[in-house]
Amino acid sequence: MRPSRRAPDELRAVSLERGVVKYAEGSCMVKFGDTHVLVTATLEERLPPWLKGQGRGWVTAEYGMLPRATLERTRREAAAGKQGGRTVEIQRLIGRSLRAAVDLEALGERQITIDCDVIQADGGTRTASITGAWVALADCIAWMKSRNMFKKDTADKVLRTNIAAISCGIYQGTPVLDLDYAEDSEADTDANFVMTGDGRIIEIQGTAEKEPFTQDELMKLMALAQQGVGKLVDLQKMAVA
Amino acid sequence: MRPSRRAPDELRAVSLERGVVKYAEGSCMVKFGDTHVLVTATLEERLPPWLKGQGRGWVTAEYGMLPRATLERTRREAAAGKQGGRTVEIQRLIGRSLRAAVDLEALGERQITIDCDVIQADGGTRTASITGAWVALADCIAWMKSRNMFKKDTADKVLRTNIAAISCGIYQGTPVLDLDYAEDSEADTDANFVMTGDGRIIEIQGTAEKEPFTQDELMKLMALAQQGVGKLVDLQKMAVA
Amino acid sequence: MRPSRRAPDELRAVSLERGVVKYAEGSCMVKFGDTHVLVTATLEERLPPWLKGQGRGWVTAEYGMLPRATLERTRREAAAGKQGGRTVEIQRLIGRSLRAAVDLEALGERQITIDCDVIQADGGTRTASITGAWVALADCIAWMKSRNMFKKDTADKVLRTNIAAISCGIYQGTPVLDLDYAEDSEADTDANFVMTGDGRIIEIQGTAEKEPFTQDELMKLMALAQQGVGKLVDLQKMAVA
Amino acid sequence: MRPSRRAPDELRAVSLERGVVKYAEGSCMVKFGDTHVLVTATLEERLPPWLKGQGRGWVTAEYGMLPRATLERTRREAAAGKQGGRTVEIQRLIGRSLRAAVDLEALGERQITIDCDVIQADGGTRTASITGAWVALADCIAWMKSRNMFKKDTADKVLRTNIAAISCGIYQGTPVLDLDYAEDSEADTDANFVMTGDGRIIEIQGTAEKEPFTQDELMKLMALAQQGVGKLVDLQKMAVA
Amino acid sequence: MRPSRRAPDELRAVSLERGVVKYAEGSCMVKFGDTHVLVTATLEERLPPWLKGQGRGWVTAEYGMLPRATLERTRREAAAGKQGGRTVEIQRLIGRSLRAAVDLEALGERQITIDCDVIQADGGTRTASITGAWVALADCIAWMKSRNMFKKDTADKVLRTNIAAISCGIYQGTPVLDLDYAEDSEADTDANFVMTGDGRIIEIQGTAEKEPFTQDELMKLMALAQQGVGKLVDLQKMAVA
Amino acid sequence: MRPSRRAPDELRAVSLERGVVKYAEGSCMVKFGDTHVLVTATLEERLPPWLKGQGRGWVTAEYGMLPRATLERTRREAAAGKQGGRTVEIQRLIGRSLRAAVDLEALGERQITIDCDVIQADGGTRTASITGAWVALADCIAWMKSRNMFKKDTADKVLRTNIAAISCGIYQGTPVLDLDYAEDSEADTDANFVMTGDGRIIEIQGTAEKEPFTQDELMKLMALAQQGVGKLVDLQKMAVA
Repeated sequence: MRPSRRAPDELRAVSLERGVVKYAEGSCMVKFGDTHVLVTATLEERLPPWLKGQGRGWVTAEYGMLPRATLERTRREAAAGKQGGRTVEIQRLIGRSLRAAVDLEALGERQITIDCDVIQADGGTRTASITGAWVALADCIAWMKSRNMFKKDTADKVLRTNIAAISCGIYQGTPVLDLDYAEDSEADTDANFVMTGDGRIIEIQGTAEKEPFTQDELMKLMALAQQGVGKLVDLQKMAVA
Repeated sequence: MRPSRRAPDELRAVSLERGVVKYAEGSCMVKFGDTHVLVTATLEERLPPWLKGQGRGWVTAEYGMLPRATLERTRREAAAGKQGGRTVEIQRLIGRSLRAAVDLEALGERQITIDCDVIQADGGTRTASITGAWVALADCIAWMKSRNMFKKDTADKVLRTNIAAISCGIYQGTPVLDLDYAEDSEADTDANFVMTGDGRIIEIQGTAEKEPFTQDELMKLMALAQQGVGKLVDLQKMAVA
Repeated sequence: MRPSRRAPDELRAVSLERGVVKYAEGSCMVKFGDTHVLVTATLEERLPPWLKGQGRGWVTAEYGMLPRATLERTRREAAAGKQGGRTVEIQRLIGRSLRAAVDLEALGERQITIDCDVIQADGGTRTASITGAWVALADCIAWMKSRNMFKKDTADKVLRTNIAAISCGIYQGTPVLDLDYAEDSEADTDANFVMTGDGRIIEIQGTAEKEPFTQDELMKLMALAQQGVGKLVDLQKMAVA
Repeated sequence: MRPSRRAPDELRAVSLERGVVKYAEGSCMVKFGDTHVLVTATLEERLPPWLKGQGRGWVTAEYGMLPRATLERTRREAAAGKQGGRTVEIQRLIGRSLRAAVDLEALGERQITIDCDVIQADGGTRTASITGAWVALADCIAWMKSRNMFKKDTADKVLRTNIAAISCGIYQGTPVLDLDYAEDSEADTDANFVMTGDGRIIEIQGTAEKEPFTQDELMKLMALAQQGVGKLVDLQKMAVA
Repeated sequence: MRPSRRAPDELRAVSLERGVVKYAEGSCMVKFGDTHVLVTATLEERLPPWLKGQGRGWVTAEYGMLPRATLERTRREAAAGKQGGRTVEIQRLIGRSLRAAVDLEALGERQITIDCDVIQADGGTRTASITGAWVALADCIAWMKSRNMFKKDTADKVLRTNIAAISCGIYQGTPVLDLDYAEDSEADTDANFVMTGDGRIIEIQGTAEKEPFTQDELMKLMALAQQGVGKLVDLQKMAVA
Repeated sequence: MRPSRRAPDELRAVSLERGVVKYAEGSCMVKFGDTHVLVTATLEERLPPWLKGQGRGWVTAEYGMLPRATLERTRREAAAGKQGGRTVEIQRLIGRSLRAAVDLEALGERQITIDCDVIQADGGTRTASITGAWVALADCIAWMKSRNMFKKDTADKVLRTNIAAISCGIYQGTPVLDLDYAEDSEADTDANFVMTGDGRIIEIQGTAEKEPFTQDELMKLMALAQQGVGKLVDLQKMAVA
């Protein structure tokens, strides 16, 4: 039995609350159980220098944790003077994932910045961030549509697909979905899947924590992930309906 | 008439919600109208090196803003690689103010770190931070009491007094209480008062934005502040009751 | 009796020596007793990016201490790789104060940078810096006038007023003026006043070091400060005469 | 046909040269075609602070590129003052992968640091780094064995398994092995596999560059990777024989 | 007798291998015995801001050491977040020296960046770097000539002269040439000479490690250096022939 | 004729004023004409970690320039977040030079830090710094002697010799002594000599600014330098008498 007493294929309670800060073009407070992330989407009429004049836009992401999101206080990265390796790795993953959801040419020469700030961390902050970021992004694009910021016929192409993310792992020999911190610490294998609603893969990252895992085990984790992402995408659709 | 349509001596709607993150020894979501700050208090059994072995504890503070707490996105300080001057100035003020509320010898050789993270900013983030920080600090000290962490007879001395903070300014010639962003931008004078419930002063910072102000004007601002802090302290007492 | 044997309302010996470095448009070696600060004013035909094209100029300040200005050697901030919190707080105060002395529109689209470098520190470095900075600034503006750099009729408006600064505190129950380091370490309350010659307030910062102070005590400190600033402004007038 | 004219399942010419610098406990110049990486393994009798006294050792990695390893000169990270996000992400991957090859308890309370410096980059620097790092690590452990640094019976357990890494991608609809830079730029999907010689997975990272990919496509890439890693492990065995 | 068993005026085995990385406009692996440095020359059509529009080009240099170039692992400067003092001092010397070999006006408004990365260090890394850098620079200029990048009649003026560098020292009372690490650690005096093939001086840096040295001793070191540089310049000429 | 109208072998007006700041164990305001440097010597009972327990002390140096020491304002290094290459190079030279004047074993396990802060710069700041630093160092050692801080019989050995420094150059074909900024900008060759009073060499650094120079020219510069350093040492002796 899992420490969380959930069934192997059971997600934590998930909620996606929109419009949680008043200035952002899109925002979402996403909760996967006790993991809470505040996501905002910011539209800016500027681009990174290397992208100027190419007729395409950009989506990027930044990630942070409030110091006391964790059991022990974590040092504030602004005070330390740099972002840690884990932060950099996660924000690059979030950015790549969300770019896959957007037609950058249809977006036009603009940048959307996704900020994911973890208010409380209990495992799965990167998958919750990506799942909530899609909602904030969708609201940002809706905001732009309502102001007629896209060329005719392209407005509906900007957002290409839903994407969501979930972690899976092998806990005491059993493949399980959506690990919380206690489960993650004990799992033999830890894999994060970013997928579309129909189960295609945007990004997969799997790590053997103790023993190497087999192709067969990976397939079982992926089947769980497809099921979990399917549910998350349903929740996204309800949230933005 | 003020842009906010409030009476000159009228506070914004204030709320102080305790226990908003599960790991911190004390926490408070404080709202002064559209200014929302998440404050946590962290207890650690360690001290800054220069304070070791003196039989006294320490209270310190850090301050940050989520990038999209503001109308325009602000650059993330962790990405910029340093805390800006305004951040440094504010967190030093918060730390000094809260230390004045605590008997550091009664606290013992421990450190309490106050983290103030602005979720949404509409003026007065430093005064909201201090007001909410007192609640988080009081909860942290109560948590310690319930674990018998203080010497006999000193437990009730640790928290010496309530403190709260409010801003005042002269808006179109009229002294007004608790400026929001729109009022602050237009005010001739901007003063922040950190006070005890009975109107004594912990910290005062007043700045002439356009014209120097007179001692008489300062007295009028201080009278408003005493009234405002009185109300804030009542709200603190209700919150921790 | 004060450790310095001065009367409660007695300033330290103050001197304001102009023209101490040959390249700067204005400079002043200011001494408040054993506190010595070298101040320069630099005129540059450039502006911070956010101020360009608005028809106004800017005055800003930077502050530093030579490593052995203090009893114990202080680590060089350039070697540490960042300016400390105290430095940042002080240079922001100096900048705000001096801007209040200048009509930024009459100044035109230029920047004056005030550099305050503490050669020897014995308390009151920020108040000495502001008092000396006014002299360096006045000389810089005179230098510009003599080169006909202002529009007709505006040259005499650029410098709006004299400003000077002084600290006050409550030492063993008595309000005293112009604290040196030994007095400052023992004082119950520490307040810095930046004022015009006629006693109006540019900036006030008061901090309760041990016990909260009352409005009445603040009034007594302010009366001392008005008297002290009056004398400092007289000295400024003699210096630039 | 691939730009490199290789068959879809054909590796580039691979070489693993040992002992290329005289001071390191282990070293390897690894070449995957025009990608050349110099790897060293350094043994130190110290541990990161959080690992002390737990009876286990540590393996960590750092990664860098010489400025002119690339077609255009890349800014030196030491001059820029920080490691870029890509560097951080890669060195964390290398460290995790090599730790999976080592029994950290059998290693004892010591740290092995793997340094991977790219001399010339033509795609696949992270997979070449991991493959060469295993050789340097094996030599470092052999060096320790020859000095009787392990407890009896544990010396042969320290290195648990061979590991190697290879990239795969879908190039114009065809799954191909070991992408060079020209192929990588054009590929629809890019996946890196770190595996043991018998095809079990240490780490998998797959990214959809343009379109999401299916589970079936991932299986095809994995089959190619298993074949490629098998050959690389054979080359490792010959190198250290 | 020297620890290296060389005669006092004997260089270590020197080799200059060209074209060692495929992208750079010029490159050279230079070996002075066990000191190995990889040097590249990069041509860029840009200039430092302060040099724009003056009709002249620029040559600059950067220097680094791989972490395990040394007996003990040296901390990676990119990870430390800054270049150390020794690195800065050496790269400034290399840049100044190479600029002396080039007619910057004939070069035109372009920048050549010399990167010297030490693969293995056994004393004399700065002199090996300069000697190898001349070869990389010569190849870069030849590359430009072959593309007709210079104005007529100026192509042969760009490279004004050969330059090379060597260290000398006084080891147990005897002046010796080309110190390796063991000799350098024991030498009383350490001097580095950058010279032209005919013995004229580009740069001289001499340091008394223990006792001050006399003008006569300096002359003896210089005579050795002239002889050594003469041989190095011969080797350069053979290398680029 | 030199721009300064001095004879080729004529120093600028030199002054060495002791005891200029009240806290330092030794201090000196050194002036070479319009170049003014404030030097302090700080004694600390601590050592760099790599030197502990070896029975020897250490002398180190730091160098800085006030922002308006120069004709144009120079950016404050503390604000820039790092020391520039020129600063690093100079402070290493000062440290090496002063260490040569001290018997580090006789000093005992303590560190003396020399701080050189340039108040006004008109060429030759490094040579003035070294010359004045010797005076501050001598006063620091005298301060220690007067407190009986050295072992018997070693007190007079701590300071081994006088050292001073001067620059020379070739100005329009003529070797000249002690270049000011205007002369330095125009000189063909620029050399700095750190010497003992009897003309032995501690450090020599010569750079060909335009054309390589000959051994003969170097000899002429050295003869000038020996003469100049002789006079500077006489001035040091008078200063500390």
